Amino acid sequence: MKREKLTIVKIGSHVLDDDNKLNQVLQQFSALKDLRILVHGGGKQATDTLKRMGIEPRMVDGRRITDAETLKVVQMVYSGLINTSIIAKLNAMNCPAIGMTGADSNSILAVKRPVKDVDFGFVGEVKEVNTLGIETLLAAEIIPVFCALTHDGWGQILNTNADTITSALGSALAEKYDVDLVFCFELSGVLKDPQDANSVITDINKDTYLQLQKEKIIKAGMIPKIDNAFDALDKGVCNVFIKKYNALERQAGTRIHL
Amino acid sequence: MKREKLTIVKIGSHVLDDDNKLNQVLQQFSALKDLRILVHGGGKQATDTLKRMGIEPRMVDGRRITDAETLKVVQMVYSGLINTSIIAKLNAMNCPAIGMTGADSNSILAVKRPVKDVDFGFVGEVKEVNTLGIETLLAAEIIPVFCALTHDGWGQILNTNADTITSALGSALAEKYDVDLVFCFELSGVLKDPQDANSVITDINKDTYLQLQKEKIIKAGMIPKIDNAFDALDKGVCNVFIKKYNALERQAGTRIHL
Repeated sequence: MKREKLTIVKIGSHVLDDDNKLNQVLQQFSALKDLRILVHGGGKQATDTLKRMGIEPRMVDGRRITDAETLKVVQMVYSGLINTSIIAKLNAMNCPAIGMTGADSNSILAVKRPVKDVDFGFVGEVKEVNTLGIETLLAAEIIPVFCALTHDGWGQILNTNADTITSALGSALAEKYDVDLVFCFELSGVLKDPQDANSVITDINKDTYLQLQKEKIIKAGMIPKIDNAFDALDKGVCNVFIKKYNALERQAGTRIHL
Repeated sequence: MKREKLTIVKIGSHVLDDDNKLNQVLQQFSALKDLRILVHGGGKQATDTLKRMGIEPRMVDGRRITDAETLKVVQMVYSGLINTSIIAKLNAMNCPAIGMTGADSNSILAVKRPVKDVDFGFVGEVKEVNTLGIETLLAAEIIPVFCALTHDGWGQILNTNADTITSALGSALAEKYDVDLVFCFELSGVLKDPQDANSVITDINKDTYLQLQKEKIIKAGMIPKIDNAFDALDKGVCNVFIKKYNALERQAGTRIHL
């Protein structure tokens, strides 16, 4: 049987925080022809709401310390505020989307991150993706939109990195579909020169990745993202694209492959 | 073809606000054998969060004035906080539930309530239920859990009464299923004497309803609820039950029928 193509798009937080950019990416997402899934976080809006509620946001190494009170706010913002609004927008674009957390239909199980030097609280590391419900939705042409929440299977919601959720969904669904991951953000792709928006590296494989790291062209914040991409490719994902939010419908940006 | 039975359960706000009662009703809901849907609101928790965020809650005739800022909080609390937590609990009870608003899969379309004496803001009156996505979920044994939000089909979320959503779902789904509506709250049913918890009226039809109103046994707050029940019955729902939150699995409470 011919395998169907599935595109999983993750929207970066700078795009999420700008109504104009968000509308553009959703318009393009809704016009895609493949089976598809959308993933988003919402860190900045969670921080704003925490402050408004008088709760001091705390981050360590770019990860949020999620105590019980912070988790409630993260749930409210990711799922209630951002996800629900995206669903209303997509359905208005004739894209029959349904909002999800990893708890919905038991789709993403995670374990609470073990306490080492830092206790991150209710932060989850993905353990298992249960594709049954997701496949049912895709087969019925209902489009799942995941926010950055999972559950532990015992009733506890866990705050979980949206990039990790994207890769985990991709790896699990690669057993049945030809999966491409698309990370949409505000730049045109991985840049050779961060000052030059036109210096996009159009193609990265494992060999060129090593070379780019040696030459210090790829460094710091980009490394975990690309490591994450290769991890998904090793688990069966076909291609990982890093591209601009308004370039969803065309060939553009950086393609990462084995 | 034999029609399947579908039970739509609405949890009242006093049950929602008490963890112990909520867990009991969810445990019983998860143990039901029929196809089923859960519906909830969350008024009290929305009011608490509004106050915490420094927004003054405003109610007229028991309905919330929902300006743009209040709507964001209502979305956050109904969908993000309460619905997501219920979904995590139900899935932990091996009940493969999925959280919904009326925007999900375009399932409940509403119109913004027209401004007469009062401008209620972003409050919706149900216009149309689109059962397609819901039927797909039910057929796959995925259990929809709706919170009290709908959309206008143009990208706008609307705050919508949970009782109305329950009846609208029931009326629309009665075309395909044998639907019972169950309204769960903290009392044992409709009481003959509000001071006596054992004075449950076990059976109400249109004739006895008129009589009970004449005798002033049923009055005030209960009248719109029972009118709403008869409206659903007129549209094809089989039975409407009003019963205690811990009596889901057994015959109990008040049965309303034609």
